[in-house]
Amino acid sequence: MTVELTDLLAPLEPELEAMRSVLARELESDDPAVAAMLEHLSRFRGKQLRATLLLLMGRASGNEHPELPEVAAIVEMIHLATLVHDDVLDGAEVRRQLPSVNLEWDNQNAVLLGDWLYARAFSLSTRLSSPLASQVLAEVTSRICVGEIRQAQGRYAFEATVERYEEVATAKTGVLYGAAAELGVRFGRSEADVLGAEMRALGEELGLAFQIADDLLDLEGEESVVGKSVGTDVDDGKVTLPVLLAWRSADLTTREGIEAAYRAPGVPDRRAALFAACDLGPGLTQARARADELIASARGRLSLLPDTDSRQALESVLEFTLERRN
Amino acid sequence: MTVELTDLLAPLEPELEAMRSVLARELESDDPAVAAMLEHLSRFRGKQLRATLLLLMGRASGNEHPELPEVAAIVEMIHLATLVHDDVLDGAEVRRQLPSVNLEWDNQNAVLLGDWLYARAFSLSTRLSSPLASQVLAEVTSRICVGEIRQAQGRYAFEATVERYEEVATAKTGVLYGAAAELGVRFGRSEADVLGAEMRALGEELGLAFQIADDLLDLEGEESVVGKSVGTDVDDGKVTLPVLLAWRSADLTTREGIEAAYRAPGVPDRRAALFAACDLGPGLTQARARADELIASARGRLSLLPDTDSRQALESVLEFTLERRN
Repeated sequence: MTVELTDLLAPLEPELEAMRSVLARELESDDPAVAAMLEHLSRFRGKQLRATLLLLMGRASGNEHPELPEVAAIVEMIHLATLVHDDVLDGAEVRRQLPSVNLEWDNQNAVLLGDWLYARAFSLSTRLSSPLASQVLAEVTSRICVGEIRQAQGRYAFEATVERYEEVATAKTGVLYGAAAELGVRFGRSEADVLGAEMRALGEELGLAFQIADDLLDLEGEESVVGKSVGTDVDDGKVTLPVLLAWRSADLTTREGIEAAYRAPGVPDRRAALFAACDLGPGLTQARARADELIASARGRLSLLPDTDSRQALESVLEFTLERRN
Repeated sequence: MTVELTDLLAPLEPELEAMRSVLARELESDDPAVAAMLEHLSRFRGKQLRATLLLLMGRASGNEHPELPEVAAIVEMIHLATLVHDDVLDGAEVRRQLPSVNLEWDNQNAVLLGDWLYARAFSLSTRLSSPLASQVLAEVTSRICVGEIRQAQGRYAFEATVERYEEVATAKTGVLYGAAAELGVRFGRSEADVLGAEMRALGEELGLAFQIADDLLDLEGEESVVGKSVGTDVDDGKVTLPVLLAWRSADLTTREGIEAAYRAPGVPDRRAALFAACDLGPGLTQARARADELIASARGRLSLLPDTDSRQALESVLEFTLERRN
């Protein structure tokens, strides 16, 4: 993260620390086999942006519910479960500079560990004083799965619309950010209201922008910097936004070149083949512009919150999405 | 099921029908890709023994909570999720005479469909008037995963103890029956009490006996009768109770023969190789005796319930476990 963002998040450190303690407490098992995988997972610790968003939303809206760190931990556990399953589905071998669970153990263990993480997340949510987290997160999890299924069944679908891309990416990535933002504002406090709905919309925009940034990194990033396998979208037949935009504005020959690069059998670097087949520049630029637009819209919604340091930190979180390099 | 059991269950038909309506309502999706898989799944409809147990327990204990069919449907949804993931993990191709989801679609879609089923089950549980189902089932689901992980990591572990086998099988299969029995008695009604604990213990014994019956069918059954792939335990390196017992009483040469049959590369029917390598008879007999013992113990616990037709039906459900042919 940028120095500026780290400074802005410093006041949040006690809540983040509380959230990390909950995670450490919940991600334990008496069973040595499970414990070994959890130990490995604990080294994956990422940016914890969803938890940060939730806790900042609590602060910025004056929600001081003492269980917010638990709710934030549950969101991170669900995210972790999706990562573990995603790596199985994508056959990814590197995650945050470490071997993925499916590589270090195998697909069986990784599927089961993901199931366990989901179950633990739900189990924790049922122990809270309000049912809102259980309700929102169970619903969101089923939407994530539908997004993933649509993505899995839409491989090599170059003729897809941008609208469909955004629907799938919102389901896959956006809704969990949306839930985090909404729960920060509403947990233990209010019925559904305008502020909750607006913050959910902000979270979904942030999540979609984050997914587009992920698409860009998979095409432009280097594994040593990004910390996970790159070029996997091409290998997996995922038609990401930059590629979709490039394909849509390409002539027939170039389109065939793009498709051939995606499907090239036995090519060790399909991503390079893709860049050779087509000038991806305009697609990358347009995708970046769309992410900018989403973040601008999200920023507009922040005006519903009082002008505080926490709101300023939320602005920086939004900015960070556009600048991320990993 | 036997004619007798069907007769005994006839009075339960309204609740079972209500449970099936809930299942039909919940296992729907606007998304065509998900809907197609759900349509396929709906044809898997099995014996719904867990739901039957839950509803019978409600009747037998005088619990007339109107949401019991919903709770029973949730238990069946969790069971369905575990089946879909199990078939991925085991590479099974046939389930209830139909192609498995992983065969008809692929592993990716099957993993995601299983995740979706778990999420929908939890989502429904959060919409009930009491949090008990959410709490019990989230906890049980994480125990199932641990059982599955221990099983996955204990492949080809011939030196395992019978105790370990029973621990793993109880976690994998028993606890969901235990939860079904307990929820039937307690949902919406009482704090944890002796009756709830005893019925949970009964459910776990029934589940463990059911698992042993499953082990026996995988060794002795024919695919056309059982309705799913047989011999898969041997192919997957699962040391089931009959094999474990046979191995433990075998001499060194026979033990080597058993292990060689399990690992025989490129053998189309490893199960036949196993029978050729060793007289499995005593192992099969002892395993059957253990299932009998479990059912006898479970039957003893039924005396805590008043003597009604529902209790008699519960007795028949216990009997049925020993007689099942599929």
